[in-house]
Amino acid sequence: MSGGGNTDYGRKPFQRSRAHFTDRITADGRDGWPVEAGRYRLVVSRACPWASRSLVSRRLLGLEDALSLAIADPIQDDRSWRFTLDPGDRDPVLGIRYLSEAYDRRETGYPGGVSVPAIVDVPSGRLVTNDYQQITLDLATEWTALHREGAPDLWPKALRDEIDTVIADVYEDVNNGVYRAGFATGQARYDDAYDRLFRRLELLAERLAGQRYLVGDTITEADIRLFTTLVRFDAVYHGHFKCNRWKLTENQVLWAYARDLYQTPGFGDTVDFDHIKRHYYLVHSGINPTGIVPLGPDPTGWLTPHHREELGGRPFGDGTPPGPVPEAERVPVAGRP
Amino acid sequence: MSGGGNTDYGRKPFQRSRAHFTDRITADGRDGWPVEAGRYRLVVSRACPWASRSLVSRRLLGLEDALSLAIADPIQDDRSWRFTLDPGDRDPVLGIRYLSEAYDRRETGYPGGVSVPAIVDVPSGRLVTNDYQQITLDLATEWTALHREGAPDLWPKALRDEIDTVIADVYEDVNNGVYRAGFATGQARYDDAYDRLFRRLELLAERLAGQRYLVGDTITEADIRLFTTLVRFDAVYHGHFKCNRWKLTENQVLWAYARDLYQTPGFGDTVDFDHIKRHYYLVHSGINPTGIVPLGPDPTGWLTPHHREELGGRPFGDGTPPGPVPEAERVPVAGRP
Repeated sequence: MSGGGNTDYGRKPFQRSRAHFTDRITADGRDGWPVEAGRYRLVVSRACPWASRSLVSRRLLGLEDALSLAIADPIQDDRSWRFTLDPGDRDPVLGIRYLSEAYDRRETGYPGGVSVPAIVDVPSGRLVTNDYQQITLDLATEWTALHREGAPDLWPKALRDEIDTVIADVYEDVNNGVYRAGFATGQARYDDAYDRLFRRLELLAERLAGQRYLVGDTITEADIRLFTTLVRFDAVYHGHFKCNRWKLTENQVLWAYARDLYQTPGFGDTVDFDHIKRHYYLVHSGINPTGIVPLGPDPTGWLTPHHREELGGRPFGDGTPPGPVPEAERVPVAGRP
Repeated sequence: MSGGGNTDYGRKPFQRSRAHFTDRITADGRDGWPVEAGRYRLVVSRACPWASRSLVSRRLLGLEDALSLAIADPIQDDRSWRFTLDPGDRDPVLGIRYLSEAYDRRETGYPGGVSVPAIVDVPSGRLVTNDYQQITLDLATEWTALHREGAPDLWPKALRDEIDTVIADVYEDVNNGVYRAGFATGQARYDDAYDRLFRRLELLAERLAGQRYLVGDTITEADIRLFTTLVRFDAVYHGHFKCNRWKLTENQVLWAYARDLYQTPGFGDTVDFDHIKRHYYLVHSGINPTGIVPLGPDPTGWLTPHHREELGGRPFGDGTPPGPVPEAERVPVAGRP
């Protein structure tokens, strides 16, 4: 996703497409796609917040060996996401140049947009799912047989109702709210998205002032979903999408919360600010026609102490943090060890 | 000025036009334009930083009665600055609808841009000068016979060399630097403008860490020129012009310095954030094609304590602050007394 290639700058309000391919990969294989180590490939862009959810979940759950990873170029062309970061401009496992080829193998002449995250069946080369709302939930609950030892429970049954309520609000006002503000073609729609965004963020800040995580005392799906928007906030949403009541760095609670997660193994080590900034500023020519990519803001603050440990909480519950990022997947970042 | 109607988004670097009409209004009238109470009309846009210098100087020097004021609509049309804020869309004193009419009376078929600040001779309706670099210096030194009692010396002879050095650097890297960044059509030119801007701002912050004003211990022309860019920084330059290494509010020294001036009579009372934001975001369709005007940032911080008094300094030297803003010139601002 990420409002990229198929962005509509017309007169109607910004509408996020629903995922078209909603088959699920499950433990029992009831949709024809059983969980199986090495069978599937996760295709993402590190620029895209929707895809980045699955990057974080995969790391936290230790699925790197079971579910391999293809990283698309942050800059789509008119055929959408492409593998121009790979040798020969082809994904080395799927052998394709464009993600659309996996879509075409699944459904000939599919008229919709090509989006990430996408999971592709490696043997057939066919897309299985691009259901960004479901993929991480299934990684958490259906892929358990392949989880690393000490993997956290990211969607614990006892807290599911509360998590689902939080993520619904976060989706509407925050995850998608920044896009509704940024792609608004009329002032009233922008104003509405902006007001709802900051009202929700203020409520979330109140909630997080006294507790380390959004739901319960451990990291859950809710934190992953809020994090992927917050980590992009100052780098792109503040200026490019005009979400500028304040910078994240000016909101003491949310800034500390976001830093805490960023510094937790599995979160910050998936983030590529270069991909994020180039994607948004170069792809959205409708709102940034010059294609200039801002040099700011200074990202070094992400590594400063956050003091959220003082609130207690057990990041991984009864589990443990994930190990180091596999060598091949490391994001080069100046100043990050 | 303000890079408005005649902005060039072409391939060449952004070049600010030199003022074309450089006659001076002087005490001895050597250019044919003697200083005279009630004879001239200052035309500004409150959006424009170059024009806003003269708004501040006029207030500090108490020239409101001697030099009347016309305020253009912040949104130019294809004939440039216009008096659509006035009854009948005409300036009530000059009787014209467009500032260009005063230019035409001065020089038929003048091919250059129409810019503010402009001083117009009321009896003839002719433009006298649009020399934004000279106008405030002349208000400070040639209009002395009409200054209020207690008016400060804004360009004191003993400090002129130092002031001129500071304002030359501030012009190049800051006043004009934000425009070079914002109107850059290539990444390299933007990068260069951004680097120079923030390098200069850091140097200015070092200078201002231990002294209240830029030169000497009183307010001078140098402070006026830095202020008119700083007051627009977070509202427009940070996002719209991509000058986003940090917000002004994040630079402790410059933010306190700017607030100190803002709260000094003659500075903040000339500022209209509504005009500023609407001008930049609506007029520059080349960099903001949607015409959405951001709702942020929250401007209430401008009125918070700055503690710069602790550095000493005598804002008006041996003089006094100006009196209240004339009723007809008050800028309505929520939260400002």
